[in-house]
Amino acid sequence: MTSYRLACTDCGRSFGPAEVEYLCPDCAGSAPPGHAPRGVLRVDFDRPAAAFPDPAFPDARRWHALLPLASPELLPPLPVGPTPLHRPSRLAEALGLPGLLLKDDTGLPTGSLKDRASSVVVGKARELGRDTLTTASTGNAAVALSAMAASVGLRAVILVPKTSPIAKRTQMLVFGATVVPVEGTYDDAYALSLEATRAFGWYNRSTAYNPYTVDGKKTVAFELWEQLGRRAPDALVVPTGDGVILAAVHKGFSDLRALGLVDRLPRLYAAQAEGSAAIARAFADADDEVPGHVGARTIADSICVSVPAAGRWAVRALRETGGGGLVVTDDEITRAIGLLGRTAGIFAEPAAAAALAGAQHALRDGLVRPDETVAVLITGNGLKDVAAGGRAVTMPEPIAPTLDALRRRVAADAP
Amino acid sequence: MTSYRLACTDCGRSFGPAEVEYLCPDCAGSAPPGHAPRGVLRVDFDRPAAAFPDPAFPDARRWHALLPLASPELLPPLPVGPTPLHRPSRLAEALGLPGLLLKDDTGLPTGSLKDRASSVVVGKARELGRDTLTTASTGNAAVALSAMAASVGLRAVILVPKTSPIAKRTQMLVFGATVVPVEGTYDDAYALSLEATRAFGWYNRSTAYNPYTVDGKKTVAFELWEQLGRRAPDALVVPTGDGVILAAVHKGFSDLRALGLVDRLPRLYAAQAEGSAAIARAFADADDEVPGHVGARTIADSICVSVPAAGRWAVRALRETGGGGLVVTDDEITRAIGLLGRTAGIFAEPAAAAALAGAQHALRDGLVRPDETVAVLITGNGLKDVAAGGRAVTMPEPIAPTLDALRRRVAADAP
Repeated sequence: MTSYRLACTDCGRSFGPAEVEYLCPDCAGSAPPGHAPRGVLRVDFDRPAAAFPDPAFPDARRWHALLPLASPELLPPLPVGPTPLHRPSRLAEALGLPGLLLKDDTGLPTGSLKDRASSVVVGKARELGRDTLTTASTGNAAVALSAMAASVGLRAVILVPKTSPIAKRTQMLVFGATVVPVEGTYDDAYALSLEATRAFGWYNRSTAYNPYTVDGKKTVAFELWEQLGRRAPDALVVPTGDGVILAAVHKGFSDLRALGLVDRLPRLYAAQAEGSAAIARAFADADDEVPGHVGARTIADSICVSVPAAGRWAVRALRETGGGGLVVTDDEITRAIGLLGRTAGIFAEPAAAAALAGAQHALRDGLVRPDETVAVLITGNGLKDVAAGGRAVTMPEPIAPTLDALRRRVAADAP
Repeated sequence: MTSYRLACTDCGRSFGPAEVEYLCPDCAGSAPPGHAPRGVLRVDFDRPAAAFPDPAFPDARRWHALLPLASPELLPPLPVGPTPLHRPSRLAEALGLPGLLLKDDTGLPTGSLKDRASSVVVGKARELGRDTLTTASTGNAAVALSAMAASVGLRAVILVPKTSPIAKRTQMLVFGATVVPVEGTYDDAYALSLEATRAFGWYNRSTAYNPYTVDGKKTVAFELWEQLGRRAPDALVVPTGDGVILAAVHKGFSDLRALGLVDRLPRLYAAQAEGSAAIARAFADADDEVPGHVGARTIADSICVSVPAAGRWAVRALRETGGGGLVVTDDEITRAIGLLGRTAGIFAEPAAAAALAGAQHALRDGLVRPDETVAVLITGNGLKDVAAGGRAVTMPEPIAPTLDALRRRVAADAP
């Protein structure tokens, strides 16, 4: 494995991997209440100790020289990537953006990009000899953790607010996780997960707390780079809630730049829902403290976040790359689900469709030019939220079983 | 392209591709009422006119020398396969079947094996210059057709009984299909689709009517063969409703045998739900007429079929390969969903879990030996039927947000 250190993204202090487990001890807890936390750690690799990419492997193990794991075989057996990179000609034409690319993670093992992170964190738990992992989550991250843990016989304890959506809770239970609904809010469940991590020696997977989720998610940037013929796109639109995926693509392209494999980072754009836009607001206000979005609310549950855990890293990534925030409405997200489905044959969950809606904003506002290569991350499968898909369409009325009735209906529904 | 003829699977009469479009004109309509139809056509290829597999392509285009398309580029851009072949060590141990393999199609573009067929049929529609495709279906086949058609700008007209499940109807609508609920039963919708095919010149995708769906689905056999190091497994368990997937893997391995790439076919087993078991019954009764299963009913909607369209081909495939039928209960299907989830991290729809339950039967009854290589087709994603997953698990009660309460819950839920 390539050796690495853990560097605080706020104060820059650096630690050996055995010296600290989660956050920078100097900075953790020092952010103002209700603001993005400080002390998130970043993995800084030394010179790669193995081939990058390693052609012996087709999936995420391909990138093992820049994964924080002692061996590629620590990754669970459910293969993660490569996912398709689409050049959707009909959608590109509809948008007037010939260089549009869709990086489509809907076909990953549990249907979301979160599999990338959970795979690496479960690998780390195996390396460290931990038998139980935990997180507080209502959604895709916990589902992914449950599946990856199941595939290697580790235990996952998922703390959820008792009001969490039944569908994702069902998925976790099918994967054999110990799902524990907790009286109170998400914050109560999260606080209890940290207590249990300390008290029971469990391994905590929560993003921007565990330092390794970013290095799991960054493989989406590596794949994109390789699929584009070893180059970066001009711009990349990322559905953004807590900011960790944005931090991860920033980390992935930064790793590539450090190796001389790209000469610049793509401009990164954070697509956020108008009702959960802490990072876009902080970027617009040049406010490095990243205040939380009080009462966050959007149909895009995967990017509905009050206090973004990786908010500070995300805002810096937007600034450093010359990108920015793209704030879209729930109506625009719903329309983007339909546009993506009928022009490209892809069914996205609302958070993923938000990225497409964001790309439409960016084009309209001149942030990206029609002659640029613009990649949009499709981070989650629409089957995770069929009801949201239903809002994008109109349920037709029945007809009598006759050719005449059919002819009239088909004419009325003509594209 | 490799030239081919269309041969009747009942009378053997052979036609040029331009001579006949759907069924053998001599045999169609000659089966007794309520029995599996006659006259299904099989594609018989001449010597391949191109490399097989073609290493230039990673996805289904790899097999173009044995696909009935004028060019691999006729296939829609949504990539189909290769899907993972898992060696699920924890599940294999739980079953006492070390050679267990799972061929996992849950990550295909619309989440089911039906994408393989729809991709080829849409390719054929493009070759023939047809602009509208149609089928009568309540499920995965129509969803797959809608997505593949959308990706290339063709129109899909889907006729559904007005009582069809809302979730799959939503998917089709998101993919921009013209979804037409028809008053009456499935049979009324199916009859209308045939009328419209004749009257309007639409291209009909219905399985075991259109002769090309089998050659789309057979790529699952080609992938399995290549992933096993260019050999066949000893046995293959196929979730079976209308019999087309069974016919397709039979066709795939028969194609390989014709090229000398395997020396025998794997034993094929049809896993059927007890409430929809026409093929297994006809096999057991040595009844070549394959009577329908009156009032078919099972939680596994994708294999719930009264009259199996490819029933005669399927029964012959079981007989020729030395396999058989495996009839499982809905309770066994539900338990298999949970077993697959918690030991392998895979969430399957009920039809797919039926194949795992069938493999358990085969092992118990000595039809497969513990030292054999036994592949199970996981044909559809559990996210298509979250309610079925819910029946496989118990929803836990909430706890107070304290370490003590958590400790007690985790101890009570210990594996």
